[in-house]
Amino acid sequence: MNKTPHPDLIIYNVSILPTPFIKDFIPHGWIGLKNDRLIGLSPGDPPHLEAEQIIDGHEGLAMPGLINAHTHAAMSLFRGWADDLPLEKWLKEYIFPAEKKLVNEDFVYWGALLACAEMIACGTTTFADGYFFEEKVAQAAELAGMRAVLGQGILDFPTPDAPNPALALTRAARFMENFRNSKLITPALFPHASYTCSPDLLRCCGDLAERYGVPLIIHLAETKSELAEVSKKYGLTPGRHLHKLGLLASNLIACHCVWLDEEEMDLLAEKGVKVVHNPESNMKLASGVAPIPDLLARGVVVGLGTDGCASNNNLDLFQEMDTAAKLHKVFRLDPTVMPAEVVLHMATLGGAKVLGMEEEIGSLAVGKKADIIILDLNRPHWQPIYNIVSHLVYTATGADVRHVIINGQIIMKDRQILTLDIEEISKAAKIWSNRVGRS
Amino acid sequence: MNKTPHPDLIIYNVSILPTPFIKDFIPHGWIGLKNDRLIGLSPGDPPHLEAEQIIDGHEGLAMPGLINAHTHAAMSLFRGWADDLPLEKWLKEYIFPAEKKLVNEDFVYWGALLACAEMIACGTTTFADGYFFEEKVAQAAELAGMRAVLGQGILDFPTPDAPNPALALTRAARFMENFRNSKLITPALFPHASYTCSPDLLRCCGDLAERYGVPLIIHLAETKSELAEVSKKYGLTPGRHLHKLGLLASNLIACHCVWLDEEEMDLLAEKGVKVVHNPESNMKLASGVAPIPDLLARGVVVGLGTDGCASNNNLDLFQEMDTAAKLHKVFRLDPTVMPAEVVLHMATLGGAKVLGMEEEIGSLAVGKKADIIILDLNRPHWQPIYNIVSHLVYTATGADVRHVIINGQIIMKDRQILTLDIEEISKAAKIWSNRVGRS
Repeated sequence: MNKTPHPDLIIYNVSILPTPFIKDFIPHGWIGLKNDRLIGLSPGDPPHLEAEQIIDGHEGLAMPGLINAHTHAAMSLFRGWADDLPLEKWLKEYIFPAEKKLVNEDFVYWGALLACAEMIACGTTTFADGYFFEEKVAQAAELAGMRAVLGQGILDFPTPDAPNPALALTRAARFMENFRNSKLITPALFPHASYTCSPDLLRCCGDLAERYGVPLIIHLAETKSELAEVSKKYGLTPGRHLHKLGLLASNLIACHCVWLDEEEMDLLAEKGVKVVHNPESNMKLASGVAPIPDLLARGVVVGLGTDGCASNNNLDLFQEMDTAAKLHKVFRLDPTVMPAEVVLHMATLGGAKVLGMEEEIGSLAVGKKADIIILDLNRPHWQPIYNIVSHLVYTATGADVRHVIINGQIIMKDRQILTLDIEEISKAAKIWSNRVGRS
Repeated sequence: MNKTPHPDLIIYNVSILPTPFIKDFIPHGWIGLKNDRLIGLSPGDPPHLEAEQIIDGHEGLAMPGLINAHTHAAMSLFRGWADDLPLEKWLKEYIFPAEKKLVNEDFVYWGALLACAEMIACGTTTFADGYFFEEKVAQAAELAGMRAVLGQGILDFPTPDAPNPALALTRAARFMENFRNSKLITPALFPHASYTCSPDLLRCCGDLAERYGVPLIIHLAETKSELAEVSKKYGLTPGRHLHKLGLLASNLIACHCVWLDEEEMDLLAEKGVKVVHNPESNMKLASGVAPIPDLLARGVVVGLGTDGCASNNNLDLFQEMDTAAKLHKVFRLDPTVMPAEVVLHMATLGGAKVLGMEEEIGSLAVGKKADIIILDLNRPHWQPIYNIVSHLVYTATGADVRHVIINGQIIMKDRQILTLDIEEISKAAKIWSNRVGRS
């Protein structure tokens, strides 16, 4: 630290897991931050405690903030409204009509704020979103102090924020212009899926994403009915259909990927497509079990997502990790698949790679952005500790997170979110829930 | 309340879910306790606030304490020690040798105390246990103030607490004598499984359980290898084998029940056998998915358990409910199976029925025992609320529990466990983990 600038913030008296790998674990160490970056990370005690802000870690654990690689933040306002229903009924009698009737700038703003509050409280520091009015999600994320990749939603039919696809594309272009230099926001495109976007529209989205150098987020092969519909309409499975359209590329973030065959998985791997696994949503909607171990075996980069609150119903990536680790074991009757380190990688460095941000986030290292969470280990369910990675995946919940730092700023301190007014957000959620309930 | 005695404890300013059914939900009400029982439960405000103790519920939710219908409490000391391993290796190279070498009265006492602390902190008020030295588990549960059904473990081979099965039976009889009139403890027998107990030993256990009028806890058809082993050895599947031995009866608590065929399920239903579902353990050990919807359709009473911490790795029944609801949906590709109310029933009234205690616990009603938990709903992940049952199953974790009352006593207040010294327990857990790590 002698040769580096004085830190603004020192975290000491913590154990540190800088990466998803137990070999990198530091039982007692300290971290120094300057502005938005890490400038020190070492075992032992810091050489001094001179900094504007000091955090005593109380022998907790400092680790990279989690990355929610696929969600629909504003849908937090639908949390628990329609469960245990047949998929078609859920979508066509509940979600779609309510979205058509109610989703506007205000809905998205308050829903996204609620989601940000929840995500911060459970240790997520970056999220990738896909919905409408993404500029309002950006506004919410900036207010919350969260890092976000925001995909402006595009579909063939009229949406809450665009009467037709042409205007949706114009809207998306404006959004990408406006946020191209944002500190926390990375704009992106979110053509919903192959069964809701025409081949032409998908091609336009691909071109636009390339022009702006942004990620292209899409739902891919989520359900058996999507597989059937796309296969019938285009004579090709969803993965092959996207391949034919030239969309399989390293900027494509393919979410769900439940119904892929071997050849499609080879294609995804070959083209460097990124995949996001959403096990709890896939379970709750009975979509199926994504062949994640097979994708990982091919070297595909996989991140972890919660999906929206209408199909989960929370945004806690710690619980999502537990489910991801266990689901594949029982589905394959093999307890060795999806070990804890692999799952933790998905929720940290894997997610960062999915978003093309692995140079900046996803692990703790000097020079990288300071997105750090500190967990309280002083609780019965954390005792004893043999392997901290095991506990993070199989034992922890988001409620164990005590402090959250994003981009060098303390966002949550002792479980108090400093950037948001939770009472105001809860009131707004209640008002919106009354409208949803009546819809 | 005019005609009833003055309450010792009044809980007011709470919503109340007295049963697993949303139709019974009381948006604003109060509860009065006298000694160990509920003497008042009504909508609105209490007629007065004269009682020794008053709890302001802060608009939280009061509900029955959860019932963990199958665990091995002391195995909390193995939490996270051996994950992601092939089942045989896990059992034969890790768990069995460590148990043989280390499990003694002290191990069981401290492990059970740690488990009690964790269970209380996540809203469990009753647990059913099966292990060795159950008198030490009883001591721990009594100190913690928890209600427990404790099954003294019995196997063909030498165990940590008995050199042979005959002495194990003697030990169990003594245990049942000593705790037959306990306030919080119900003694029980736990013949481990059909592949670890001879037919004679199982028959003896059945007789002994009948003589003492106690539950008989057993692992039934947990793994495919158990199915194969028992079928090969006795020419009958595990369910039929127990039937032949006359053990299928209403006091039998059959845990796991993964590998049952249709006829065995009919048998279990006909004989009134109780079943405990342990989805997270079955997932993590890759045992398989139990046919719970088929058992429920036959009218079999099903409770929910976490199993031990060596195969979960926590004791949080809220997370277990979430998993139970989702696992069967994806396994059957049907989002309507295992709806939230059914799952909440398993963790409350279903568990009470499994333990033969439904007249006393499992729901909140005047005259029943006062086992009550109060949740804090003032958190982002609880907003908005359309249906409290949905949130309890799909959104909550044990960390949402604020107060715990068992048998009329306040056991946890504002997340502080009043009966246990967590620091002392954590220290003991650390000492034991060092021994386990070296074993």
